[in-house]
Amino acid sequence: MNDQTLPRPRHRRLDVRTGRVELTHGAGGRAMAQLIADIFAPALANPYLAQGNDQAAMPLPAGAAGGRLVMTTDGYVVSPLFFPGGDIGSLAVHGTINDIAMSGAVPLWLSASFIIEEGFPLADLQRIAASMGAAARDAGVPVVTGDTKVVERGKADGVFVATAGVGLVPAGLELSGDRARPGDAVLLSGSIGDHGVAIMSSRENLEFETAIVSDSAALHGLVAAMVAAAGPSLRLMRDPTRGGLAATLNEVAHQSGVGIVIEEEAIPVKPEVAAACELLGLEPLNVANEGKLVAVVAAEVADTLLAAMRAHPLGRDAACVGTVVDDPHRFVQMTTAFGGGRIVDWLAGEQLPRIC
Amino acid sequence: MNDQTLPRPRHRRLDVRTGRVELTHGAGGRAMAQLIADIFAPALANPYLAQGNDQAAMPLPAGAAGGRLVMTTDGYVVSPLFFPGGDIGSLAVHGTINDIAMSGAVPLWLSASFIIEEGFPLADLQRIAASMGAAARDAGVPVVTGDTKVVERGKADGVFVATAGVGLVPAGLELSGDRARPGDAVLLSGSIGDHGVAIMSSRENLEFETAIVSDSAALHGLVAAMVAAAGPSLRLMRDPTRGGLAATLNEVAHQSGVGIVIEEEAIPVKPEVAAACELLGLEPLNVANEGKLVAVVAAEVADTLLAAMRAHPLGRDAACVGTVVDDPHRFVQMTTAFGGGRIVDWLAGEQLPRIC
Repeated sequence: MNDQTLPRPRHRRLDVRTGRVELTHGAGGRAMAQLIADIFAPALANPYLAQGNDQAAMPLPAGAAGGRLVMTTDGYVVSPLFFPGGDIGSLAVHGTINDIAMSGAVPLWLSASFIIEEGFPLADLQRIAASMGAAARDAGVPVVTGDTKVVERGKADGVFVATAGVGLVPAGLELSGDRARPGDAVLLSGSIGDHGVAIMSSRENLEFETAIVSDSAALHGLVAAMVAAAGPSLRLMRDPTRGGLAATLNEVAHQSGVGIVIEEEAIPVKPEVAAACELLGLEPLNVANEGKLVAVVAAEVADTLLAAMRAHPLGRDAACVGTVVDDPHRFVQMTTAFGGGRIVDWLAGEQLPRIC
Repeated sequence: MNDQTLPRPRHRRLDVRTGRVELTHGAGGRAMAQLIADIFAPALANPYLAQGNDQAAMPLPAGAAGGRLVMTTDGYVVSPLFFPGGDIGSLAVHGTINDIAMSGAVPLWLSASFIIEEGFPLADLQRIAASMGAAARDAGVPVVTGDTKVVERGKADGVFVATAGVGLVPAGLELSGDRARPGDAVLLSGSIGDHGVAIMSSRENLEFETAIVSDSAALHGLVAAMVAAAGPSLRLMRDPTRGGLAATLNEVAHQSGVGIVIEEEAIPVKPEVAAACELLGLEPLNVANEGKLVAVVAAEVADTLLAAMRAHPLGRDAACVGTVVDDPHRFVQMTTAFGGGRIVDWLAGEQLPRIC
């Protein structure tokens, strides 16, 4: 139900400063209409949302003929809800835009579904909605439809957000995880581990003094520049979120039936992130990122693509970090700074939960 | 992240019979890949999901040119998860298809985001995934992409599901909540209150002996028959879910700037549902439905449309229940069986929570 634009009720406004979300705010009646009118509608305002139907209807964009539509979804359960560099609202927008953009698609529209715990402060909800709206406006990708549910106290953890997104891949562009070929170059758009370490450092029981900020950002602008530079020589793109770079490279190796060799020294890691990881016993390769991408590209175009990435603010620190190789075992291997080598495996699951 | 098709891990299969969801199942590593490979992938299998990228890419359907795309989302927090006539998996598919269909659109694709509480039985998760897959197959609308998150024990309530959907409105069809005009007929596709009463009756503390089953169903087939019968004379359709028929009619009255007069005797309510409502002190007009729709149509086409609805299995009990009138107050009024009348207001919010 597109409940963002129900008729404005004739009661007094919500007490956003001291009020809390109640079960009636999710019951489909006047209280829900008021929550939406006072909090979500102003924060997310756009003409599609304003249609006020159970769904939003949008014209097909120019250039749709011959293209393909892409669809993606993500649930966000990050804890804490507010962290250095963002919050669950901006994170949900960035993460969903990035999943669309990794196909080479132009992101068009987002949806947002809120599951809220009874008693959650209205002021925090407003802050999250405002942050979501700002991230969507900055990216030029509107939240066109939404939903609100409320569950009893103790049956959720503040707020969960599930977003979905739709985009359009231009005709002729076909990126996919199974297209890596031996000889291809593996490029990384910047330093790894920032998001995961920022979340961990802001968790009560893991606090330490750092200036580490999440890299949460929408990458579709960088992607557009990359598509323009490399065209069909671009094999695939992935954003190394949960599971980090290690999981992403292993996924690609499996899907494409190849091996990947990366060089430890080539992978950008900020000194403060490296220090925090050492303190926590974490491997930066396994830590989540929310504003980075991995690209696999035909070797002959690697330099051109790298230059295009570095010319974009979100790709300033881009680097060529490895090569795709022939390997029936589909191993990801890393050449270490000391000249040795080791297998980079996926984590079995020891990563901290609720990183996104 | 389209994590439905990560590479199959080389470990032993999940112990679905006695096992439980662990935090590692949401961490982006091998455990998550195994959960997806053993539970979600077989239940939801389709070629788009099998692409295995961070998003699914689909060709534009024939007839897309000149049409509009619609997008919708819904969060599902229904309690209990399994109820007479369905479960959270089938409900999520039906509800999202219906929100798309109410625009007159042909539903094309769904996404599903699962937020799971640590300790949730794998057997129950498998049952929900299977039910979701069956509902999607029956409806011919595939779940093309998905996401899985796990939160700590006590931080959710079993499973929450957020679905989004995309559909295509054919050129020339434009239904909207603001198109009701005085003189139009208000049609209802069948009996009201079945879903809400089925949920309430299956809640531990409200148990009573009834044979009441949720009406949860995908209505896009009925909608297609209605569009074929009434064409552009169809003003709008809505599915009266949370808040029931009363909320839906009030929304339409507000959006269109009209009044609506309904006749109590014309509204189908099953005797057992009416009896349960009386016992619980509920008004059937406020109780949620998950397989019914309200249509507003030009009066001269009402009989034709009603006949078309009755010819469809999900519209057998369709009835003309009221008329749109000129009313600057935008009131919904009901003529009672005794010849009197009363205002049908929205609930302020006293509805039972977590009905969907």
